[in-house]
Amino acid sequence: MSEIIVVKVGGGAGVDVDSVCADLAVLAHTGKRLVLVHGTSAAVDRLSERVGVPRRTLQSPSGHVSRYTDPETLELYVMAANGQVNTTLTAKLQALGVNALGLSGVDGRLMAAQRKDAVRVIDPSNGRQRIVRDDFTGKIERINAELLQLLLANGYLPVIAPLAISQACEPLNVDGDRAAAMIATALRAETLVILTNVPGLLARFPDESSLVRHVPRAHLERALELAGGRMKKKILAAQEALEGGVQRILLADSRRPQPLQTALAGEGTAITHD
Amino acid sequence: MSEIIVVKVGGGAGVDVDSVCADLAVLAHTGKRLVLVHGTSAAVDRLSERVGVPRRTLQSPSGHVSRYTDPETLELYVMAANGQVNTTLTAKLQALGVNALGLSGVDGRLMAAQRKDAVRVIDPSNGRQRIVRDDFTGKIERINAELLQLLLANGYLPVIAPLAISQACEPLNVDGDRAAAMIATALRAETLVILTNVPGLLARFPDESSLVRHVPRAHLERALELAGGRMKKKILAAQEALEGGVQRILLADSRRPQPLQTALAGEGTAITHD
Repeated sequence: MSEIIVVKVGGGAGVDVDSVCADLAVLAHTGKRLVLVHGTSAAVDRLSERVGVPRRTLQSPSGHVSRYTDPETLELYVMAANGQVNTTLTAKLQALGVNALGLSGVDGRLMAAQRKDAVRVIDPSNGRQRIVRDDFTGKIERINAELLQLLLANGYLPVIAPLAISQACEPLNVDGDRAAAMIATALRAETLVILTNVPGLLARFPDESSLVRHVPRAHLERALELAGGRMKKKILAAQEALEGGVQRILLADSRRPQPLQTALAGEGTAITHD
Repeated sequence: MSEIIVVKVGGGAGVDVDSVCADLAVLAHTGKRLVLVHGTSAAVDRLSERVGVPRRTLQSPSGHVSRYTDPETLELYVMAANGQVNTTLTAKLQALGVNALGLSGVDGRLMAAQRKDAVRVIDPSNGRQRIVRDDFTGKIERINAELLQLLLANGYLPVIAPLAISQACEPLNVDGDRAAAMIATALRAETLVILTNVPGLLARFPDESSLVRHVPRAHLERALELAGGRMKKKILAAQEALEGGVQRILLADSRRPQPLQTALAGEGTAITHD
């Protein structure tokens, strides 16, 4: 069987999805088996703004900040993630001759997650801790790898929205990087490529000349110390994938031409076992 | 192989999707192979209202009225159809123990359609004809039956949004009843059930006691004369399915308990070859 590559493309405003799709098409036509996992943040923000629902965040006691996905925001998140972004990417790939097929984690229970039904947060108005009970985010626990294998074996390129299904069968907002890591692990993928808005892990953020080219497993703790905010989550996702048996994780820049091919050729940060 | 039943459930405001899903679960657990095709009109209207995009219609010279799906409306249509309604139905079925998997016609080119790139319409302001060139609706020409068969053979219940892919790979608004008829034909389904907000074809609309219980193929032209507005489209879809080899088409009421089981047991209007 041919190599499996899982590609995560961020949902931020600056991401050049056309270049990513063009590269996926080149690789698909060489016979590689590919899975695309996408983010959705800019699309949710835009829809929220249009309907007048303000974006709210939750801050954990450890300082981690995430989107507050209350029922109203969840509805918008589902529309933006599984409606708009997923359909647009799937259609773009189809236009390039790739037999793309869009899914979310709800479909065939592709991504089953545990909902965090009581989240401890810091109230920004007074700095005190309180419990939030209507946040619909989750932590993925199980991937339906058989479904992805069935589609890959039949020539489809799965395009996956960052939406999981809870034990009560509610849709849940899940982190796209960790979703991609779980999928790469479940498929025993050789490579996970995480495309984002920076060239990779930077030793001195935001100095792009300080790119760290290689992080062996033994140096992952050090890399986590270097990484700020969102890069920290990507390094954690890479760590999960590495521990799950993925051979290499590439963190690379989605803003340049041929972002995927150059990442596979050695641009960006490679995280490997040794 | 077990019987294949294609079920179309309308997207109107009064449709009781919970009862339809409960019935689908009962049938799925008896081993029937089922496909659900859904409408989306109320969800698109609601989202359009929330973002302040007025619903507009196009009237053909023959009097047929349809949603004007300009690029802005198409974006909302995709979000509502493939995001909200499709994900909600899929999650509801999963909660009932059915391995549902949501798709639109864009996914794997499940429904390839011809876009009507120049639509002749009546301008309501002056009654004159004019040409509209930015309407994204289409007529389905080809169903990827292999994809549906692959999913059915592996225990999935496909849930299909009324969205096709054009030759230029744009998403297109397509009529859900005709989509269901095309799918039933492509799968050589025994039965197509079209659930709507009336008990079936009424000889004297809206008198529900005037239900026509049976329409043999030879009487279809007469049925088309009896049918008003949206029922006419359903009869046309039924005709297409019948001509495509589907054995029976059932038009039945989605507003009653066990709408699907009672339809299969003989409530509503049955359209058959003889």
